[in-house]
Amino acid sequence: MTKEELFQQIKAKKSYLCVGLDTDINSIPRHLLNEADPVFAFNKQIIEATLDFAVAYKPNLAFYESQGARGWESLAKTMEYLPAEVFTIADAKRGDIGNTSKHYARAFFEQMNFDAITLSPYMGADAVTPYLAYDDKWAILLALTSNDSSRDFEQLAVYDDSNFFNIVPSKLYEYVINKSLAWGHSDKLMYVVGATRADELAHIRKLIPDHFLLVPGVGAQGGSLEEVTKNGMNSQCGLLVNSSRGIIFAGQDEGFARAAGAAAGALQQQMAEYLDRYL
Amino acid sequence: MTKEELFQQIKAKKSYLCVGLDTDINSIPRHLLNEADPVFAFNKQIIEATLDFAVAYKPNLAFYESQGARGWESLAKTMEYLPAEVFTIADAKRGDIGNTSKHYARAFFEQMNFDAITLSPYMGADAVTPYLAYDDKWAILLALTSNDSSRDFEQLAVYDDSNFFNIVPSKLYEYVINKSLAWGHSDKLMYVVGATRADELAHIRKLIPDHFLLVPGVGAQGGSLEEVTKNGMNSQCGLLVNSSRGIIFAGQDEGFARAAGAAAGALQQQMAEYLDRYL
Repeated sequence: MTKEELFQQIKAKKSYLCVGLDTDINSIPRHLLNEADPVFAFNKQIIEATLDFAVAYKPNLAFYESQGARGWESLAKTMEYLPAEVFTIADAKRGDIGNTSKHYARAFFEQMNFDAITLSPYMGADAVTPYLAYDDKWAILLALTSNDSSRDFEQLAVYDDSNFFNIVPSKLYEYVINKSLAWGHSDKLMYVVGATRADELAHIRKLIPDHFLLVPGVGAQGGSLEEVTKNGMNSQCGLLVNSSRGIIFAGQDEGFARAAGAAAGALQQQMAEYLDRYL
Repeated sequence: MTKEELFQQIKAKKSYLCVGLDTDINSIPRHLLNEADPVFAFNKQIIEATLDFAVAYKPNLAFYESQGARGWESLAKTMEYLPAEVFTIADAKRGDIGNTSKHYARAFFEQMNFDAITLSPYMGADAVTPYLAYDDKWAILLALTSNDSSRDFEQLAVYDDSNFFNIVPSKLYEYVINKSLAWGHSDKLMYVVGATRADELAHIRKLIPDHFLLVPGVGAQGGSLEEVTKNGMNSQCGLLVNSSRGIIFAGQDEGFARAAGAAAGALQQQMAEYLDRYL
């Protein structure tokens, strides 16, 4: 999907909501366990209930891999079920080099036709550029995440010693952003930026005015949607705000899908208002 | 597997060889494509041919995931086929937080009973500690990798600004090692250190005298086994040296397994000599 197409979807649905399909088989309603594929049965009903309100879906690979080959099949069926106008993100946080990255790209972009994959930047350009070789596919780099231990390395002071006089430090995540700008443009690259840090979101938006940001952590992890929007929105929206448990596990038992639809709808209503106000 | 058990295996086999099962379905001998599960058929013969010479096997997840659910099944069968005395490493380079990490740990440590998983440290302690909760299982952190773009971030100068006066810089990979020492001991944590940098290997061995190092990059990527051994071996060996393509694709056609065995055997002979000389 192109950046323009994504923006069209955002305007059409008045939403920049991404639904995180963190489908933990231990958390889905018990009655679904009688289905042939409980995880897919759950996802299917969640998608039906939320499709009017969401422009993107983001399966978290861990929850499928922990079910082995069966989980991988549930994921493939989920991907087949999602309509083409939806932006799909493999939340895989892969990061490996050369030939290995090419195989991951094949797995997610060809085998399952995801639009995007999340990547860890630690190994550098080699871990990212193979994904950028695909037309209309996206690499979403971890920049500043919302977990406590983002302080361990992401927020560490670094400097580029290629210039001895340039000892003004930046944080590792800023350096990652700046460095990666040489690898691909804003029609190929996005960044993960945690919603718990609205001030830093504003700072990052200045560094990269044109890029889409994937923002997890609204709701369960405590970020405010209005703060995120105020600090992060650009002229093409530039935001995909993810909610996982807050939507998919909003309700229990037979009413789970209706509750998920209501939770997604409530977020979408706020987003429609913020798109009017801040776009 | 405990550290002591791993060392016993190394002494018994006079080998610290890890065979990388980077089983690219496009590179395996054509005649295997008639098998019900070509990737497993290939791995099975490779394992039979190399088992006397190797203490560890390291499937690279990308090559299985690029085959979808079928690939995941090939991997599960490979894991079932490997005998218990072999140290098994999921080369997955995962890195995610809290609940997500727990699911990856379940996938690799419980579903498939791997002894170890490679991890990317970018997100900090949250991305590592869930794996350390398992007895006799291992987290193998990326430290300094052998790819060119390890210069992008891994070798970047950083400093800890929690102490204003401590502006002596270290490289990010050193900082990662030092920081992670607080998370787990040398019976739970290993590090990936590329073989192309023998001088840095010696430096890292000084930082962490007791930890095992997983060293890729001998052979195809140009590192010398003797240099690696001289600079990296400690009193419990402390090295697992990986070779992937140099072994598994050493030969073609019907003779592929024999050639793999010969390649592994040649490395093991060198290792036996170096164990005598440097242990």
